[in-house]
Amino acid sequence: MTRKIAILGATGSIGKSTLDLVEDHPGRFDVVSVTAAKNVEALADIARRTDARLAVIADESRLGDLQRLLAGTDCRAAAGDAALIEAASDDAELVIAAIVGCAGLKPVMAAVEAGKSVALANKEALVTAGELMTGAAQASGSVILPVDSEHNAIFQCLAGSRREDVARIILTASGGPFRDASARAIAEATPAEAVAHPNWSMGAKISVDSATMMNKGLELIEARYLFGLTSDRIDIVVHPQSVVHSLVEFVDGSVLAQLGSPDMRIPIACALAWPERIETRAQRLNLTAIARLDFGSPDPERFPALRVARQALEAGGAAPIILNAANEVAVASFLAGAIRFPDIVELVKRSLDELHFDAPTSIAEVLDIDRRTREHVDGEVKASCH
Amino acid sequence: MTRKIAILGATGSIGKSTLDLVEDHPGRFDVVSVTAAKNVEALADIARRTDARLAVIADESRLGDLQRLLAGTDCRAAAGDAALIEAASDDAELVIAAIVGCAGLKPVMAAVEAGKSVALANKEALVTAGELMTGAAQASGSVILPVDSEHNAIFQCLAGSRREDVARIILTASGGPFRDASARAIAEATPAEAVAHPNWSMGAKISVDSATMMNKGLELIEARYLFGLTSDRIDIVVHPQSVVHSLVEFVDGSVLAQLGSPDMRIPIACALAWPERIETRAQRLNLTAIARLDFGSPDPERFPALRVARQALEAGGAAPIILNAANEVAVASFLAGAIRFPDIVELVKRSLDELHFDAPTSIAEVLDIDRRTREHVDGEVKASCH
Repeated sequence: MTRKIAILGATGSIGKSTLDLVEDHPGRFDVVSVTAAKNVEALADIARRTDARLAVIADESRLGDLQRLLAGTDCRAAAGDAALIEAASDDAELVIAAIVGCAGLKPVMAAVEAGKSVALANKEALVTAGELMTGAAQASGSVILPVDSEHNAIFQCLAGSRREDVARIILTASGGPFRDASARAIAEATPAEAVAHPNWSMGAKISVDSATMMNKGLELIEARYLFGLTSDRIDIVVHPQSVVHSLVEFVDGSVLAQLGSPDMRIPIACALAWPERIETRAQRLNLTAIARLDFGSPDPERFPALRVARQALEAGGAAPIILNAANEVAVASFLAGAIRFPDIVELVKRSLDELHFDAPTSIAEVLDIDRRTREHVDGEVKASCH
Repeated sequence: MTRKIAILGATGSIGKSTLDLVEDHPGRFDVVSVTAAKNVEALADIARRTDARLAVIADESRLGDLQRLLAGTDCRAAAGDAALIEAASDDAELVIAAIVGCAGLKPVMAAVEAGKSVALANKEALVTAGELMTGAAQASGSVILPVDSEHNAIFQCLAGSRREDVARIILTASGGPFRDASARAIAEATPAEAVAHPNWSMGAKISVDSATMMNKGLELIEARYLFGLTSDRIDIVVHPQSVVHSLVEFVDGSVLAQLGSPDMRIPIACALAWPERIETRAQRLNLTAIARLDFGSPDPERFPALRVARQALEAGGAAPIILNAANEVAVASFLAGAIRFPDIVELVKRSLDELHFDAPTSIAEVLDIDRRTREHVDGEVKASCH
């Protein structure tokens, strides 16, 4: 049976992997709409390859270019927020939500409110608007299929089980490039050292999050909303090989784990085909070649981001938005050489202490809190540089 | 909701663990019948504790004792094969099949034919009568819930998935006491060395099976029938810590694994409550305390039992019955000092080469092939001792 899909963020890495899978399984998926932020040439190319009926470029100044590039096809060109929301909520049964950052919030919310299945790769949706998104999903019957490897692992392990049978979930963390570094070495870490992730090839922002372990902090918050579990039932274990992507412990003592090669096609394929499976070209896991898996506790002293994130999770309301926005500005400032590595988490912590907003009741309010936090942290960074 | 259960083999180790779980969850289970081979005092005690309505002793000579011990209760005493079958097929919704050895075949088959859910701890049911049992289960709608830790792990990992989405299943093997022993040391192994299992406390027969790795060979055959997969889709990986109980690889590259402490209450609880879960007193898995998991390939040279078992699996028909019966006689002969350690597998291999029976079409025929194989191997052992 053909499944109609929309790919939001089709020109990015998740979008590309999705397209590879779609093309490897002809007849299984019908791409009805595709979107991109700015890259109008790549978007037009994807629209032609997939026979999509709607192509949306977020940047409205590029609409004319997109129309020219799609001339002679059956694909309608559109631009701007309203068109992104149309792509997310119109004809597709499954929406691949791979827009990066807070730009993804409104389209994801539109897909959720329209009751679509949502393959969620946008991290901000649950970190900054977890309460709103999961509330809307419950109301509309939307199913959220996490694409992030850790949450996809937990999703697979939970499949079919009752929430009251879950004792806890355990997110694995590679530990990042500073897993075995001394506190002193971490304090003096350079941007080049911080972006050298051991297992996955990732962008600079996410690599720094892995170095501070704030990535796990953000995942804690996502997990809380995705799986409806309180903070005390979400643990983190350091697992340097990143082969076990996460685990679920049940009340009878059984633990289920999902393992795999570090290849995003695996969780994307899972979300695309769920509850069925489709073949991927991902390398098969060879446990005897891997030979050894290690596990340890994260060190809260060297990685204070974990404690700060857990505090934001437990506070709820606007705190996760502040955490996320402050961290983004702080990481960018670190990469630009404006602050030192330990200042990243320190700035986040200070923002959580200093900023106070009511819990948001709409995506517009989420975006407002996000903007105001960024302005505040920008100001802090500038003040500290003078 | 109360689930009516029958416990066949209530006085053994699986029976005792089942009773512990039943008593830890008052109101959840109603024990309607209990059986034992010979231990009439323990059986009567269990019948009184559980308020069972039927207690069956296999040994008919003990019926009078059982009747006296149950005087004044509402529990009916009975004995012999027909009564065992009644206990297996009468009033229970779930039958715990924990009778040891081929004595369990007829009662298990009766439960399967009656369409019961069967928590299967009896290994012989699938090794020697896999085709017959699974055929009967398909016809009656009986669900077989494996209690063996490896197969229970695979059962949990497969839950809800389509068979065509499974690439392969991977049974883990501790490797037994001779995992790192030289071929020469294995050739000279004594019974005392062979029964020293590193992770589980077990009886002498099963411990020797672990030392030859014939236990994994027998599990291969059980897995083939339980999960309907051909030999090429069932692999074995050596995992000394026995923390990962087994794994399933799906066509998308995802691997699901079940992990846990070495405590049979976990798989028993899983089978008792499935598809729900119940709490157990089993020790919770602590990955950071375990710290390290290792994986390797089994060595076919030092452990020829694996190849011999796979040949029997692929031959099908009577071959698995011959494998099982020859192995039992050979292990008993080794424990009695009549043959050397490598002779165990050699005798099994020779029996498979020399004996030829038609594929059985009934449990009676299975039992006949079993008996004739035992006589043959007994003769071989006696001949070799002269």
